[in-house]
Amino acid sequence: MTELTPVHGTAQKLGAEALGTFWLVLGGCGTAIFAGEYVGFVGVALAFGLTVLTGAYAFGPVSGGHFNPAVSVGLAVARRFAWKELPGYVVAQLIGATIAGAVLLLIASGVSGFTTADGFATNGYGDHSPAGYNLTSVIVAEVLLTAFFLFVILGASAKRAAVGFSGLVIGLALTLIHLISIPISNTSVNPARSLGVAWYAGADPLSQVWVFIVAPLLGAAIAGFSYAFLLGDD
Amino acid sequence: MTELTPVHGTAQKLGAEALGTFWLVLGGCGTAIFAGEYVGFVGVALAFGLTVLTGAYAFGPVSGGHFNPAVSVGLAVARRFAWKELPGYVVAQLIGATIAGAVLLLIASGVSGFTTADGFATNGYGDHSPAGYNLTSVIVAEVLLTAFFLFVILGASAKRAAVGFSGLVIGLALTLIHLISIPISNTSVNPARSLGVAWYAGADPLSQVWVFIVAPLLGAAIAGFSYAFLLGDD
Amino acid sequence: MTELTPVHGTAQKLGAEALGTFWLVLGGCGTAIFAGEYVGFVGVALAFGLTVLTGAYAFGPVSGGHFNPAVSVGLAVARRFAWKELPGYVVAQLIGATIAGAVLLLIASGVSGFTTADGFATNGYGDHSPAGYNLTSVIVAEVLLTAFFLFVILGASAKRAAVGFSGLVIGLALTLIHLISIPISNTSVNPARSLGVAWYAGADPLSQVWVFIVAPLLGAAIAGFSYAFLLGDD
Amino acid sequence: MTELTPVHGTAQKLGAEALGTFWLVLGGCGTAIFAGEYVGFVGVALAFGLTVLTGAYAFGPVSGGHFNPAVSVGLAVARRFAWKELPGYVVAQLIGATIAGAVLLLIASGVSGFTTADGFATNGYGDHSPAGYNLTSVIVAEVLLTAFFLFVILGASAKRAAVGFSGLVIGLALTLIHLISIPISNTSVNPARSLGVAWYAGADPLSQVWVFIVAPLLGAAIAGFSYAFLLGDD
Repeated sequence: MTELTPVHGTAQKLGAEALGTFWLVLGGCGTAIFAGEYVGFVGVALAFGLTVLTGAYAFGPVSGGHFNPAVSVGLAVARRFAWKELPGYVVAQLIGATIAGAVLLLIASGVSGFTTADGFATNGYGDHSPAGYNLTSVIVAEVLLTAFFLFVILGASAKRAAVGFSGLVIGLALTLIHLISIPISNTSVNPARSLGVAWYAGADPLSQVWVFIVAPLLGAAIAGFSYAFLLGDD
Repeated sequence: MTELTPVHGTAQKLGAEALGTFWLVLGGCGTAIFAGEYVGFVGVALAFGLTVLTGAYAFGPVSGGHFNPAVSVGLAVARRFAWKELPGYVVAQLIGATIAGAVLLLIASGVSGFTTADGFATNGYGDHSPAGYNLTSVIVAEVLLTAFFLFVILGASAKRAAVGFSGLVIGLALTLIHLISIPISNTSVNPARSLGVAWYAGADPLSQVWVFIVAPLLGAAIAGFSYAFLLGDD
Repeated sequence: MTELTPVHGTAQKLGAEALGTFWLVLGGCGTAIFAGEYVGFVGVALAFGLTVLTGAYAFGPVSGGHFNPAVSVGLAVARRFAWKELPGYVVAQLIGATIAGAVLLLIASGVSGFTTADGFATNGYGDHSPAGYNLTSVIVAEVLLTAFFLFVILGASAKRAAVGFSGLVIGLALTLIHLISIPISNTSVNPARSLGVAWYAGADPLSQVWVFIVAPLLGAAIAGFSYAFLLGDD
Repeated sequence: MTELTPVHGTAQKLGAEALGTFWLVLGGCGTAIFAGEYVGFVGVALAFGLTVLTGAYAFGPVSGGHFNPAVSVGLAVARRFAWKELPGYVVAQLIGATIAGAVLLLIASGVSGFTTADGFATNGYGDHSPAGYNLTSVIVAEVLLTAFFLFVILGASAKRAAVGFSGLVIGLALTLIHLISIPISNTSVNPARSLGVAWYAGADPLSQVWVFIVAPLLGAAIAGFSYAFLLGDD
């Protein structure tokens, strides 16, 4: 995602991905959990975008700044990222997201009346959709929005793109995606973000989390595959 | 709109315009339809701007990133865009917007109680203006705001402009335009955006949609014509 | 305010200043008048900032993008702008702002129940301060905030500054200034913005408008004078 | 924090740090005090970020734009800032913040009903946390958020980073941090910001202010120490 990607060791790359995904879940889901009643969906949307925007400049120069298994898969399909690096990246992202979920639980437990039964920023459909959207709507939205997220990523980080803007644009794309779809699915487009909080929130969110693994991966793969044909390679 | 415009085939250019206009209507009108009651006019204004901001970096390098027949016309009048390319661009924009409207209808139908009678993000005057503005006010606002949108586009994408900023500035201009005028007309400045949802929302919005074709085109043409005289060519 | 300032004729410069100041008042005061009850002070603050941000890229390359007599004076004191150009700039700014006020009145009259007695986005102190701040608080705030506005302008448009960012940073500074001080004085820091709407809003706002001429000019002059000593010339 | 750091005298550097920290407290705490009830936590978060964003372009070229003792310490630990300059910087930051607190008190006293018993934008835990978070949660949040603030600063201002973006990214990181944690601790991550208002708000905030000195310094030192190991030096 960043223009200058110097050579780094694998350990540093995976550390950067874990830290960046930790930051995404801590900041995005954290704003929803701690501050959602004060800042509304606009504040939560802004927070998710700013985690990626800031993480891209902090950690992107080391790892490329994916912070999301769907992004890694989409970039691999589009031949911008080596398939052999994918398993390590995804494991690092899941570890970062899962530790972030635990830290969120620790901080949230410090106020009386807290319960994960209020959702704990998990994604869902039907009764677990913020505004009650059904499974079909949630799948269509998550596939489409992840696909366009990848189009923006692929365009903004192309070789021909102006230097320095990619993190800014990609972060703001995630803000836009949340503005559109928090009421639909609480917005995932990122399996690591969904799993990172689902572990801690009881059986219901965990039983629905497959949607937020399958749909984002599918959307990202479609975008990665069609990008070169539709828009020209790089 | 983007500084580096490599040679692309016509099919790719039209595909990019269709995808970008789809994204504008999906993201802007989608936020209004799905999330308007949660994010308010600030959220909707931000969303419309971010569709253009992100689309400019995703699709702009291929097609120039118009996503709006008024923009294409204004650029042609200002001699920044070839007249012979105009018909193809407009058709692609209308197709993208119309498909987006259908997808919005599909997703919105997944929640109980949805009805297009709530407006479906269409533009209007009089009884169909969000705050009840009459036809004169709506026309003055749409002409003026589209003209200034073109001034910003022409200035930010001029050869002398700093590389990389145009998409950012033009997207934020659209956010500003929505902050000003959602209460007046629900904000068009874009015939494709207006038509893309009007098809699906019954007779009343469709009977008023001519205003949101004529006024933006007029404003864009005025700006395109006067830019070189007022501000110097490029 | 822009890094690349090619040679333009006087008429074009004054036209650019008039258009830019028109845009500032139309967009900033317009959002307050048409949409204030929907978008709140956050929306109005964002709108004022975005008028300058977008105007800087549209008109800044021609005139430098002042759009504000206090900015022109502060830049002249800091020796970044020729004193002999000041009278023309100020007249152009006042003309642009005054025409914008008339257009706002025209559009606003298109909805039933409109009255300028609701304030018409004028600035004031005491009974005319949005939250009831007295004259001393208003003067301290307006002097200080205009001074820091000039510090940001002088820093962001210095020769050593990175190319392309000045309009972005200066616009966001105006958003910040409005976030701080709309409750205090409805925020001026710009005599042209204050006069542009005061003409139309009755005797009370006009009787207080001297504060919003004197305080911004004083703050700008202090900043322009002290900048070189405090922070080094350019 | 800025890419181009020409040679400046010590007096100018300390003046720039004092002015920048004054601006941070005036703008951030000022928005909370004057406008908090109107703009909500989103507006306050945006304001804090924009003080640093704009201050970085105004004063950053002179002093590096720390405006925060924790940032100076973190940069010194990471060997980006000379230890011998630290005492002067911290004193200048504390002076700027303390004068800002006095000016805020002056302006706020100009409206009837004002009392510092409403908090005066101070930080706190337990009964003095906006949403009642306990000491453990506040310490964890402040340490973690300051650490990630430093990761963003170190990444965005590294030699390999794109020129011009650092102020933008670092300012938006502070907005994100406030979105997450205003309900927890009213958000410090900056001992100068906390002390600057605590002096004036009675015994309770002052008795808790040690947390907002210790936790940010600890978080910044951890980040400064681990950055080179985790992410590669510069």
